[in-house]
Amino acid sequence: MNNFNFNNPTELLFGKGKVKKVGKKVKEYGSKVLVVTGGGSVKRIGLYDKVIASLEENNLEIYELSGIEPNPRVSSVRDGVKLCKENDIDLVLAVGGGSTIDASKAIAGAVFYDGDAWDLFAKGIIIEKALPVGTILTLAATGSEMNPNFVVSNLETEEKMGAGSPLLYPKFSILDPVNTFTVPKEHTVYGIIDIAAHVFEQYFSHTESTPIQDRWAEGILVTLKEESMKVLANPEDYNARANIMLAGTMALNGLISIGKETDWASHGIEHAVSAVYDIPHGGGLAIIFPNWMKYVLDQGTDKFVQYSTRVWDVDPTGKSDKEVALEGIEKTREWFNKMGAPSSLADYDIGNDKLEVMAEKATAKGTRGSYKVLDKDDVVEIYKMSL
Amino acid sequence: MNNFNFNNPTELLFGKGKVKKVGKKVKEYGSKVLVVTGGGSVKRIGLYDKVIASLEENNLEIYELSGIEPNPRVSSVRDGVKLCKENDIDLVLAVGGGSTIDASKAIAGAVFYDGDAWDLFAKGIIIEKALPVGTILTLAATGSEMNPNFVVSNLETEEKMGAGSPLLYPKFSILDPVNTFTVPKEHTVYGIIDIAAHVFEQYFSHTESTPIQDRWAEGILVTLKEESMKVLANPEDYNARANIMLAGTMALNGLISIGKETDWASHGIEHAVSAVYDIPHGGGLAIIFPNWMKYVLDQGTDKFVQYSTRVWDVDPTGKSDKEVALEGIEKTREWFNKMGAPSSLADYDIGNDKLEVMAEKATAKGTRGSYKVLDKDDVVEIYKMSL
Repeated sequence: MNNFNFNNPTELLFGKGKVKKVGKKVKEYGSKVLVVTGGGSVKRIGLYDKVIASLEENNLEIYELSGIEPNPRVSSVRDGVKLCKENDIDLVLAVGGGSTIDASKAIAGAVFYDGDAWDLFAKGIIIEKALPVGTILTLAATGSEMNPNFVVSNLETEEKMGAGSPLLYPKFSILDPVNTFTVPKEHTVYGIIDIAAHVFEQYFSHTESTPIQDRWAEGILVTLKEESMKVLANPEDYNARANIMLAGTMALNGLISIGKETDWASHGIEHAVSAVYDIPHGGGLAIIFPNWMKYVLDQGTDKFVQYSTRVWDVDPTGKSDKEVALEGIEKTREWFNKMGAPSSLADYDIGNDKLEVMAEKATAKGTRGSYKVLDKDDVVEIYKMSL
Repeated sequence: MNNFNFNNPTELLFGKGKVKKVGKKVKEYGSKVLVVTGGGSVKRIGLYDKVIASLEENNLEIYELSGIEPNPRVSSVRDGVKLCKENDIDLVLAVGGGSTIDASKAIAGAVFYDGDAWDLFAKGIIIEKALPVGTILTLAATGSEMNPNFVVSNLETEEKMGAGSPLLYPKFSILDPVNTFTVPKEHTVYGIIDIAAHVFEQYFSHTESTPIQDRWAEGILVTLKEESMKVLANPEDYNARANIMLAGTMALNGLISIGKETDWASHGIEHAVSAVYDIPHGGGLAIIFPNWMKYVLDQGTDKFVQYSTRVWDVDPTGKSDKEVALEGIEKTREWFNKMGAPSSLADYDIGNDKLEVMAEKATAKGTRGSYKVLDKDDVVEIYKMSL
């Protein structure tokens, strides 16, 4: 195991009816709250009314920023910063999915910075002071509800960049699985694939002797495998929604990567695809990840054998390590397909004409990954496998 | 899954050489530190000198309280409180095992209370304000390094009582596995059994649909099973020591019990034994726990079948659920014995003359446990099974 530091101060309030607590939690941080929302689903499911009622019960002064985009834009962040400054906001409350939470973190992190909000990304400005952020999660996917990171897009510069600060761990996150009952099938599936992909990026690693981290990662994956079928059969299966929601949070709150080298190549390789073709991130990951697995397999089959046998119950009897590994990878693909996710770029009508452009984009800042260090040519190969 | 709240703000600094960071960490909280130590092993292994060097490097004013007992006494806590008050201490730094950490928490929690420190336990006084606590762990066992609880004994009243406060999560805990290399075999084993017992108390539960919590608990248990053999073969196996240390911390930091009913009967049943006969807690648990398992089995074999098959790889083919469950329980006992732990009270020369007295003590505050609710007669039965 490698040396590590770990500190995650986010408070989780998890379960049915927990939204009622929001007013009391916000009040711990002051009297003026900026409520940040996305496209309107929080109103359709009645969540918005419950949030406002709890805030009003606690005599909080409510300001609002709605319409945060699926890939949150820095222009929205600027709007939020303006609202915070003008109204002396005490806490930013995100009500929505990962994008709404990410935008809220960016707002909270940019309020006390004198320059433009985009500098936090483009110039990598260290955030010295931030407003507290609270969240009410409505989609199991990004894990942003319990980590200090956020991603924002800039349409003018055509860039999508990430930033982070220990100051931006949400102070509290309210996770009521009921709020995910109405998430459409497609977004439920892409959320599950995103969660699985987060686990993969941390699981496949050359760091030796990390049995707890490995088994915890496998525990999340097996849970996703089993609960995904239940939630697709019955979108209002409370326990299935709860277990997937918890999986999303635990997959990216820093726990399963303690003391390990991680990879994150597939995320970068996919981002280049969705940047050029505007396909859903979860759909892109479903296509790319199994091919990444096959491509990096020559760097060590042990971890893949472990994956195949423990997560997919592959029987290794009479098979070579490589055969066992490939069987697990195949089962991963089958699972994605069973959930309705695509298996090749062709499913999105993407041909081979921009592979170089995407690979260039994916490796613009240098090589990708660590399980196998990938250069531009490697990325092109993975795209070719994905056609 | 049940509703839950979770919040654990302790920062972990884990790995070889992390002790060097202590001065810098303490300095974040002030300039005057009370260093609390136990019986002298921290000096023998050279850890004490490293700690003092780092504190001095950071120009900290150092005060000391040494000689904390294996079952820390309230008299030591009172001494610590006095030192803190007289010298206007900013942070209490525990350097040692669970007892030293528990005493340090009690000191930090009692400093701002006007009455006697024992009131925190006997009167259940709510701690409104506390000094920050930091820890440097030297024994993998209690998990006190990442939770807000502590247990203290009062020789005058012959009581051993626990207390806790969210204010007393250690601000930071430094875990260097090297500091556990010289822990004697017996204490290493009892620590491992204590950790496993903590997991059992949270794992065996009637709460339905907690797959992540279950698999994480099983991950810790399998890790203990595997790494215990390595560390007994080679006490200086860094990775084995590291994995056991991490297991101890993760077993009792609140994570594996989120959303679950827990039990804790066996701990109460054992405490009564070690209170009357002064045997080691870990040794008592090794005797009691497998018998508790057998005794509660009639309340539901499913969880035990899961335990047997996932943790002990019991092959269920052609066996009844009860047979599978009993095989896993037997393997638990065999593991404890293989590590050198006792299997019956007779191993400590304890006969049947005080079973009633102990059972009375164990149930003085009412029934015990939840997997099966145990009254005094049930506890007597478990003691009889343990003779």
